[in-house]
Amino acid sequence: MSHPLDQLTADEINRAVKLIKSRYSGKLLHFKNVETEEPPKALLVPYLEAEKAGRPIAPPPRIAYNIYYVLDDKKAEEAWIDLGTNTIIKTAVIPKPHHPPMDMIECMEMEKELFKSAEVLEAFKACGIEGDALNTISTDGWMYGADEEGAVARQMMFLIYSRNPKTNHVESNIYAFPIPFVPIFDLLEKKLIRIDWVATGGDNDDLDGFNYNTRTAGRNVLDQCAAHDYHPDLVPSLRTDLKAYNVIQPDGPSFTVEGNLVKWQKWRFRVGFTPREGMVLHDIDYDGRHTFYRLAMSEMAVPYGDPRPPLHRKMAFDFGDVGGGKCANQLNLGCDCLGVIKYFDGNLVTPSGDVDARKSVICMHEQDDGILWKHTNYRTEEPAVVRRRILVIQTILTVANYEYIFAWHLDQAANIQLEIRATGIVSTQAIDFGKRSKFGTVVSPGVLATSHQHIFNLRIDPAIDGYKNSISVQETEIIPWNHLNPRGTGFVNNKYYLEQAGYLDAKIENNRYLKIVNENKINPISGNPVGYKLSAAATALLMAPPGTVARSRAAFATHHFWVSKYKDSELYAGGIWTNQSFKEFCGVQNAVDRKEPVRNEDVVLWHSFGLTHHPRVEDFPVMPAEMLKISLHPNDFFVGNPALDVPPSTQQFNRSVEVMQTRSCHRM
Amino acid sequence: MSHPLDQLTADEINRAVKLIKSRYSGKLLHFKNVETEEPPKALLVPYLEAEKAGRPIAPPPRIAYNIYYVLDDKKAEEAWIDLGTNTIIKTAVIPKPHHPPMDMIECMEMEKELFKSAEVLEAFKACGIEGDALNTISTDGWMYGADEEGAVARQMMFLIYSRNPKTNHVESNIYAFPIPFVPIFDLLEKKLIRIDWVATGGDNDDLDGFNYNTRTAGRNVLDQCAAHDYHPDLVPSLRTDLKAYNVIQPDGPSFTVEGNLVKWQKWRFRVGFTPREGMVLHDIDYDGRHTFYRLAMSEMAVPYGDPRPPLHRKMAFDFGDVGGGKCANQLNLGCDCLGVIKYFDGNLVTPSGDVDARKSVICMHEQDDGILWKHTNYRTEEPAVVRRRILVIQTILTVANYEYIFAWHLDQAANIQLEIRATGIVSTQAIDFGKRSKFGTVVSPGVLATSHQHIFNLRIDPAIDGYKNSISVQETEIIPWNHLNPRGTGFVNNKYYLEQAGYLDAKIENNRYLKIVNENKINPISGNPVGYKLSAAATALLMAPPGTVARSRAAFATHHFWVSKYKDSELYAGGIWTNQSFKEFCGVQNAVDRKEPVRNEDVVLWHSFGLTHHPRVEDFPVMPAEMLKISLHPNDFFVGNPALDVPPSTQQFNRSVEVMQTRSCHRM
Repeated sequence: MSHPLDQLTADEINRAVKLIKSRYSGKLLHFKNVETEEPPKALLVPYLEAEKAGRPIAPPPRIAYNIYYVLDDKKAEEAWIDLGTNTIIKTAVIPKPHHPPMDMIECMEMEKELFKSAEVLEAFKACGIEGDALNTISTDGWMYGADEEGAVARQMMFLIYSRNPKTNHVESNIYAFPIPFVPIFDLLEKKLIRIDWVATGGDNDDLDGFNYNTRTAGRNVLDQCAAHDYHPDLVPSLRTDLKAYNVIQPDGPSFTVEGNLVKWQKWRFRVGFTPREGMVLHDIDYDGRHTFYRLAMSEMAVPYGDPRPPLHRKMAFDFGDVGGGKCANQLNLGCDCLGVIKYFDGNLVTPSGDVDARKSVICMHEQDDGILWKHTNYRTEEPAVVRRRILVIQTILTVANYEYIFAWHLDQAANIQLEIRATGIVSTQAIDFGKRSKFGTVVSPGVLATSHQHIFNLRIDPAIDGYKNSISVQETEIIPWNHLNPRGTGFVNNKYYLEQAGYLDAKIENNRYLKIVNENKINPISGNPVGYKLSAAATALLMAPPGTVARSRAAFATHHFWVSKYKDSELYAGGIWTNQSFKEFCGVQNAVDRKEPVRNEDVVLWHSFGLTHHPRVEDFPVMPAEMLKISLHPNDFFVGNPALDVPPSTQQFNRSVEVMQTRSCHRM
Repeated sequence: MSHPLDQLTADEINRAVKLIKSRYSGKLLHFKNVETEEPPKALLVPYLEAEKAGRPIAPPPRIAYNIYYVLDDKKAEEAWIDLGTNTIIKTAVIPKPHHPPMDMIECMEMEKELFKSAEVLEAFKACGIEGDALNTISTDGWMYGADEEGAVARQMMFLIYSRNPKTNHVESNIYAFPIPFVPIFDLLEKKLIRIDWVATGGDNDDLDGFNYNTRTAGRNVLDQCAAHDYHPDLVPSLRTDLKAYNVIQPDGPSFTVEGNLVKWQKWRFRVGFTPREGMVLHDIDYDGRHTFYRLAMSEMAVPYGDPRPPLHRKMAFDFGDVGGGKCANQLNLGCDCLGVIKYFDGNLVTPSGDVDARKSVICMHEQDDGILWKHTNYRTEEPAVVRRRILVIQTILTVANYEYIFAWHLDQAANIQLEIRATGIVSTQAIDFGKRSKFGTVVSPGVLATSHQHIFNLRIDPAIDGYKNSISVQETEIIPWNHLNPRGTGFVNNKYYLEQAGYLDAKIENNRYLKIVNENKINPISGNPVGYKLSAAATALLMAPPGTVARSRAAFATHHFWVSKYKDSELYAGGIWTNQSFKEFCGVQNAVDRKEPVRNEDVVLWHSFGLTHHPRVEDFPVMPAEMLKISLHPNDFFVGNPALDVPPSTQQFNRSVEVMQTRSCHRM
């Protein structure tokens, strides 16, 4: 029997799809998501508590949530299906102005239309590309973004590139060969709306090239570009001096797994996977105590800084517009993790309603991470040292050009960290050979990598020793210079509680940080409520200024911290429908606008942070991972260091090898 | 023959000591440091260049730099000795108000005096400790700090603790048993100056207990405390479910070492070790190109926030007051590193002038660090993935209660990172049982762990493709909403150069970062000068407000970035003599006060950052490592990703193991 936090089985997906198909018998459907509807907390919590107590109760009803297009009716719909009774219990047409997410398959299908369009072929011809030269063309289907408020047709745009025209190698890096026009299609009508030309000017003629077709007159625009490849088959020579490095766990891993339930080093949690968020951690306990109810990436907005139409519309919401789970890589043994690996699979749905079984979308393994704690008694010269073993739970997304690596790190001191690595290929556009632009960096001849941001949101649904929690703001403050503070050196950690839903920003000057605490449970040692501290990423926020549609649709990206009262299904910081949105809809801004009390309530903390990326030449043709880390540390949750009982680090256990002989270096 | 960047050999130390002893024949000396005086850049650079070109020239004169006390004369002196001619070439008495660093040996010697002092014994008696009960007492000798401006005697203070009075176990955690008085000694006169009593009151009676002796009247102050131990022998039971994890490098490490010269994955650098800074990296090249001339921790200030005398004086400058090298642990195989380890030794000097040969003060090993870059071509589903191998060069300091782990991470994409872990035991003081204090956290009965800061300074002496470099400040800025920016979404990376020595702070709102560039060498792809970007730690700075002596003596800790023109021997951000200082002396504030031009000059960048630590209960009895990371990334230094040629990650190479069977979990 499935656990309420399990993904839908193949059979469940098939049953859900069958019901929907029968509702629209004879009509052409395009399925977006078919997934488990997470039970309301009021139903799930009693189930989880009973389960842990060894007195299982009946699970909440198992509901499949579906999003699909009825293509013949040009409408999008949500449906909820009770899998117990095999009945559709509710449907809802997705109203204007909302648009469900796109998917790569519809983009690739639309690409076929692209090559049938006389206008598009004419545009290619104006770029000097026709006949066989068209064979090397490759496109990236992009979300259209949004220009202004108001309902518009469901659209997409193509960024057009070419494989290496000289070789047409299927793995050649297309982003080294950008073509400066953007066809825009109506996804439901499946037809070209118009072609926008891309300015290819530099700092002295920014808007030049906007009518590129009048200027190139037959010269192939790709002539100015050069191959710049990342695929190992296309790199002239590889290093030969990297020696093998193997991780051996002779006794197997320290974790156990049963279904989606993982136990490791006093941790107990469930691994979930959804089409939208990808990897989710549920019901996370440490040593039998609740810590977090749910942890997941909630959204990411990727606005680009080049304001010249049409590329100002490049603002991807990778989770809401496409889907973190739908973009998850199928990971390969020995490539994406090292050591003893457990994989988790994902069940998605194809547009036609078939089960899209994805192998190995999440990997889990242990890793040695250096020293967890050490102290040497300087009098006896006796060291006590414990190594930090972490459990890594990782997923990797490919969103067209970019890759994102999300990894949870759990350790033996009850810390939880989220590590994000951004890699893959920067999105590029054409620039006239020899010019430079303030809007980005020339990373290859005729290739501009535009400045952009990745603003992430991590949704933290805490359960610190229970579900009624509070958010305490902690700020380091100097105290008055008086008899208590005769030399002026005094400082304290000032604390106050957030009473009402709202937002807050990081402030490095006063070391501001947030603690999630349970005021109903006091640490017997310190007298403080038990809690977890958020070590946040204090980074630049969304650049787009007030008044822009970009800012309105990504309100979540304008503050570091949002605190709301829990509401079922309120999971997405950027709103439910982000594709072509002009304003957050049921996002975190709406959540805090309810102004509910959040003190000693079921509270949710949302943390926004990001990378503001002015590309380096080194980021091309593939970008060395840029890294970010967020941490959740127990703070007066325990009565002492919870990792005291980790066995000391010994040579007998670790079996290291000392390099005894220094080897002669080659002459430099 | 020694390399100019080698430490002194035992023979060289012996020769230097002998010369100094002969100068002060018959007098009692106390040696602090005997070390290599690094040659002036004007002499060293030609040597290094000639060496790399394979046309060696004569090395610069080899000079030993010495600091010692002539105890009979109560004076401290510096001496420079030419080891080639075996002559003292210069001496200089260290004038008032300066005091050379302290060392643990003199503290432990002074501890003997402590127990001879009738006043001290009287104070112990007032705390209910006398006779055999004194056998469990253990002290930490502390730098006296500074109260005010002006020359004072060379002093130290004792923080007094006890081993577990019930067991007197030699590894029991003394910081769980604090005793509330502080004897202050004159280190040259070797006699007690006075005893200061520590307030043990809580938030309602902060200054209470200041005359503790009048209140306890025979009751043992330690009765309110309880054992709280970290040593594995004293922890009731250890986890048994952590499985072995071994790192195997069947073909040995990928590095080669010859003396202090290391080559690894296109990197070539020298490992140095000094009494004051500990680990130093010198002359760092990547693929035959200069990147940095010298990288080292320059200083760390650790002010405590409790303003109540005498503990307001707790403000340690761990590098200047004691010495990073002198505090370096002798590392043990299988304990402090994992895998195939190369150790470097250190040569220091004992107070009596003997060679203090320290084994394994630096360890170096390779580590797998996850994914360096990945891209999956979503059309062919072909992934290309490369793992990140890092070279870790690590040293660990024990400064009485605290441990600091400093590790340089070099990677194959020419990134250099400094990782700092703070661990060990928080410094504690007595608080009356049951009380709480705003100045810290009660971490054990009767034990207050005071709030404090660790403000580090990293000195970055760049040589980006040469020695004339500039500092470029980069800030993300929105641009006006006009015809070029019709939807208001535009932003650019605004850049300006620092022309004159000065300081600057991090600013997260506009994503401010610094680039070190060589304006004389332009990247042929981007048109930007070649450079390295500093990914700084934007953290809270020194809390002590203007007007305090604490701020005056740690000016370096008041701004994130300092930029100065290179000057030989100017290495210490907090000044040369920090012990009991009331103002930086030849520190970074003085360096920038010269207001020299720094554009296209031999420039030095100093980065201050830190941890503001309000202790958690979890930080006791030993603190799970708190981590900080600083990165230096090539930024338009190369013509593309320098890690393209790293062999792809394959199962054949990595030999991972898939967990095929899920194992039954124990009932929760």
